[in-house]
Amino acid sequence: MKVSHFPISTLRETPADAEIKSHQLMLKAGMIKRVSSGLYTWAPFGLKVMRKVEEIVRDELNKAGLVELLMPTVQPAELWQESGRWEQFGPELLRMNDRKGAEFCYGPTHEEIITDYARKELKSYKELPVTYYQIQTKFRDEVRPRFGVMRSREFIMKDAYSFHTTQESLQETYDQIHAAYSRIFERMGLTFRPVLADSGAIGGSTSHEFHVLADSGEDAIAFSDKSDYAANIELAVALPPKGERPEPTEEMQTVDTPDSHTIDAVSAFLNKPAESSIKTLIVEGEEEGEVVAILMQGNDQLNELKAEKIDGIGSPLTPATEEQLLQAVGCNAGSIGPVGLKIRIFADHAVKNMADFVCGANVDDKHHIGVNWGRDLPEPEYVDVRNVVEGDPSPDGKGTLSILRGIEVGHIFQLGTKYSEAMNATVLGENGKPEIMTMGCYGIGITRVVAASIEQSHDDNGIIWPAALAPFQLSIVPINYNKSEDVKAEADALYEELIAAGYDVLLDDRNMRPGAMFADHELIGIPHRIVISDRGLKEGQVEFKSRTDDDANDVQRADIMQFVADKLKA
Amino acid sequence: MKVSHFPISTLRETPADAEIKSHQLMLKAGMIKRVSSGLYTWAPFGLKVMRKVEEIVRDELNKAGLVELLMPTVQPAELWQESGRWEQFGPELLRMNDRKGAEFCYGPTHEEIITDYARKELKSYKELPVTYYQIQTKFRDEVRPRFGVMRSREFIMKDAYSFHTTQESLQETYDQIHAAYSRIFERMGLTFRPVLADSGAIGGSTSHEFHVLADSGEDAIAFSDKSDYAANIELAVALPPKGERPEPTEEMQTVDTPDSHTIDAVSAFLNKPAESSIKTLIVEGEEEGEVVAILMQGNDQLNELKAEKIDGIGSPLTPATEEQLLQAVGCNAGSIGPVGLKIRIFADHAVKNMADFVCGANVDDKHHIGVNWGRDLPEPEYVDVRNVVEGDPSPDGKGTLSILRGIEVGHIFQLGTKYSEAMNATVLGENGKPEIMTMGCYGIGITRVVAASIEQSHDDNGIIWPAALAPFQLSIVPINYNKSEDVKAEADALYEELIAAGYDVLLDDRNMRPGAMFADHELIGIPHRIVISDRGLKEGQVEFKSRTDDDANDVQRADIMQFVADKLKA
Repeated sequence: MKVSHFPISTLRETPADAEIKSHQLMLKAGMIKRVSSGLYTWAPFGLKVMRKVEEIVRDELNKAGLVELLMPTVQPAELWQESGRWEQFGPELLRMNDRKGAEFCYGPTHEEIITDYARKELKSYKELPVTYYQIQTKFRDEVRPRFGVMRSREFIMKDAYSFHTTQESLQETYDQIHAAYSRIFERMGLTFRPVLADSGAIGGSTSHEFHVLADSGEDAIAFSDKSDYAANIELAVALPPKGERPEPTEEMQTVDTPDSHTIDAVSAFLNKPAESSIKTLIVEGEEEGEVVAILMQGNDQLNELKAEKIDGIGSPLTPATEEQLLQAVGCNAGSIGPVGLKIRIFADHAVKNMADFVCGANVDDKHHIGVNWGRDLPEPEYVDVRNVVEGDPSPDGKGTLSILRGIEVGHIFQLGTKYSEAMNATVLGENGKPEIMTMGCYGIGITRVVAASIEQSHDDNGIIWPAALAPFQLSIVPINYNKSEDVKAEADALYEELIAAGYDVLLDDRNMRPGAMFADHELIGIPHRIVISDRGLKEGQVEFKSRTDDDANDVQRADIMQFVADKLKA
Repeated sequence: MKVSHFPISTLRETPADAEIKSHQLMLKAGMIKRVSSGLYTWAPFGLKVMRKVEEIVRDELNKAGLVELLMPTVQPAELWQESGRWEQFGPELLRMNDRKGAEFCYGPTHEEIITDYARKELKSYKELPVTYYQIQTKFRDEVRPRFGVMRSREFIMKDAYSFHTTQESLQETYDQIHAAYSRIFERMGLTFRPVLADSGAIGGSTSHEFHVLADSGEDAIAFSDKSDYAANIELAVALPPKGERPEPTEEMQTVDTPDSHTIDAVSAFLNKPAESSIKTLIVEGEEEGEVVAILMQGNDQLNELKAEKIDGIGSPLTPATEEQLLQAVGCNAGSIGPVGLKIRIFADHAVKNMADFVCGANVDDKHHIGVNWGRDLPEPEYVDVRNVVEGDPSPDGKGTLSILRGIEVGHIFQLGTKYSEAMNATVLGENGKPEIMTMGCYGIGITRVVAASIEQSHDDNGIIWPAALAPFQLSIVPINYNKSEDVKAEADALYEELIAAGYDVLLDDRNMRPGAMFADHELIGIPHRIVISDRGLKEGQVEFKSRTDDDANDVQRADIMQFVADKLKA
């Protein structure tokens, strides 16, 4: 393409309201234009990258035997009422009424539509397994749309749904799609990890997320250094500590800790390390009005998802109100502790081997020190309720964990029968009787992949695309295209040669000063550029520079096609 | 693809609620599945055809220098308020509120969004002309969705918008896109006509529709047999009759015409041809409460669009109420006539040369006969207000008109400044001052093209695709694929050979009886099929049959690749 037919529209200034790098760079590079909160137009450069993402996804899924179809974006309420989600789904579901008053929504996901499709389409177990997929626009009315297309309201997803009569078949398809996802993200040139994940609101049991690694990622991911183990930190199991609890060496005393209401403040005041303190959280229990205590070692972070799954702790996790605190404990947050507490007490495993520890005394501005289990208070119920940290043992027993940050770009679930049962999606089984189908579902955020790739790879000058996603493979930047006949002739000739050789090439025919053109091509992230100037042509040369090279190469005009072939192969 | 991964799901029965052939065949062939009124899932065979339509459109538009982008489907009300269409658009606009109560619509078209894009993006006349396009899902809340994807609520359109500072530039782009549209529909293998059209509610002046010709088409199109003239019948000019009006030969008389309230009934009763009668319609005038008369020769059809454009006739065209009739005329419809009428009278040109004619007497169940202009009543105002008919002279003076039926699949408009003025979309002109841009807009109904192609080409056995749109180029139908090792081996080998040679081929590995498979492939419209059977293989042969051939050819297995190459080239 020539820029005259594929307009570059870069910005000089970083837009003030863009918080993360990918959002800033997509706006600056003119890939997207804001229409309204969470709504964007994909400008030519953005769309071209997004289509490359789409094509890789489509190609790999077709090769894996998935069947493409296209469901409507507008979905009738009836189907959502059948699944029960019309009531369950919150305000993220964009609801609307048609001219006759009938209720519809703009699909944020398509479980209901595909289950309806499958129950009408599939008659016999012999037609299974089958996996349908689509690449379709979706809408999620985010409470706070932000980060550009990373968390926009309208977005494009690849969603796939598989149907089975046995768990074995579901597992087999799940594994195949897991492998296809790995091929997809590898082919895109992204550094990614599949990790164990929580299956959340969609339902089901087994689930993996695919994360593009980036320091700015919203999710923390725990990896083993000695095995394949990888899990979203939400889910990563913290093993109980090894070894024995030390014997007590101190007597329990109560000390004043004026104005010290955090672990750090208490530790500093008492001149003891934070690991020797226990922090106590009071939250709602499962019974109406009940509160329970959760104990953690001073430095550890509570894992809410783990807490919510523990029998006896309320879900969603809800801190006790001030009134509940005063009634159950008799003091304010900041001085709470387990000694003498008359409510159910859960303690993280890490607390088990603590001796001579510090904890709140349940009197404002007082703490106990030298506290010991069994002697000063009864043993609590031990549970896994903390986030793992760097250096923890891997839960599979192999190696230790390290923590990286990631952006979720794919998610696969074993749904089970949640939708098929509610919507009575059956096939005739081997015994001739109707059987409820078992389902899997599999998503990739097409538009999000574009942003995630940028988060992973950019520098001060702009985007650095992996070759497979770059909007163009290379560009030609002629200097004085409109003034020098030689430059124009060579630029046009090379452009035609490159196209004939099958390259996706951009010719910048804007007649701007070279520095401005170079800056644009670097910002947009075109992987290689060839500069054609009168000065070079005098020596029979053109200049070749890759986006990540510090210096340019002078290449004989006659050799440039071979040079390009070698560079782009590598 | 193999059918095991590209499921055929045909129906035996013609769905009762499908009124037109394309809807019936798309359902029977399993191309689309109904989700709700006017909402369809595109099943694999339908989607594959639709993508071929998309790709041809995209390729030709890229070649013509148009710039692809992708605008959101959900559009903020603010922009529609700026253009004034938020109030003007009726219930076809699907409106919705987001979680904060802000108003949005699901875009039925994108003039507002693109005008907003252009006014932010384009700074100088030097950047013009530019034409943006997208292929995007749209929603129009039809009062009566029907005919499958021919008039569905959710549909896919290619819409394009051009920006200019001069009418000459607009005309040039308009002509280029007119030519690109012709290439697109030619490449699709469709029989089509570009015709002059009304620009309707979108606004603007010059406009052409592209019609796929089909007997079932909703639109009538008038063509000259001696020139390029072609126009939607809505717009085709009816020339005044040539020659002189004959002299009166009869005296005016009033006769009883009991129970004769239509032209046909009166003509039969009086034993006179319908062409010798004048029919009189009373409609609302332009002034509040005023009514006017429209006179037509007995056999002619009123053209509402022409009528609405006449100064003095109200728009939209509104028949007089019974009360208005009795007050202005004194009789009921069926006996109205122009003699003695005290309201403004418009008469179609065809009426001008009538003598000794019949018309209502403005008394129930009475007509005048032997009526003559000038003598019995004053000359009316002559206008063009009828539909042209087969045999009318072409309005360009060359040849005569014939009438065909068509399905509108494309429409191009010269919009002018309707949107750019309302939304203040300017660029700096050559004189350095802001100039309102002039716009064109250009649509193709992607999903509709699929249905139109079927309306144009099918037989009793199913769909007959033009080669460019067929879901597969050819299919392999093995007999006893699961029982005969020879058949399986040859079918698989030929399948791989055809794929390696670049053909888009479907292998039917369903193990059904041959007749059922043949019927499916004919219904779906695969243009050629190769049957592989033990019987044929004994002779070293396979069987080749094209969808439109009566008989099959036995071809040596060794020659089949060359045979396919020859057949598919032709």
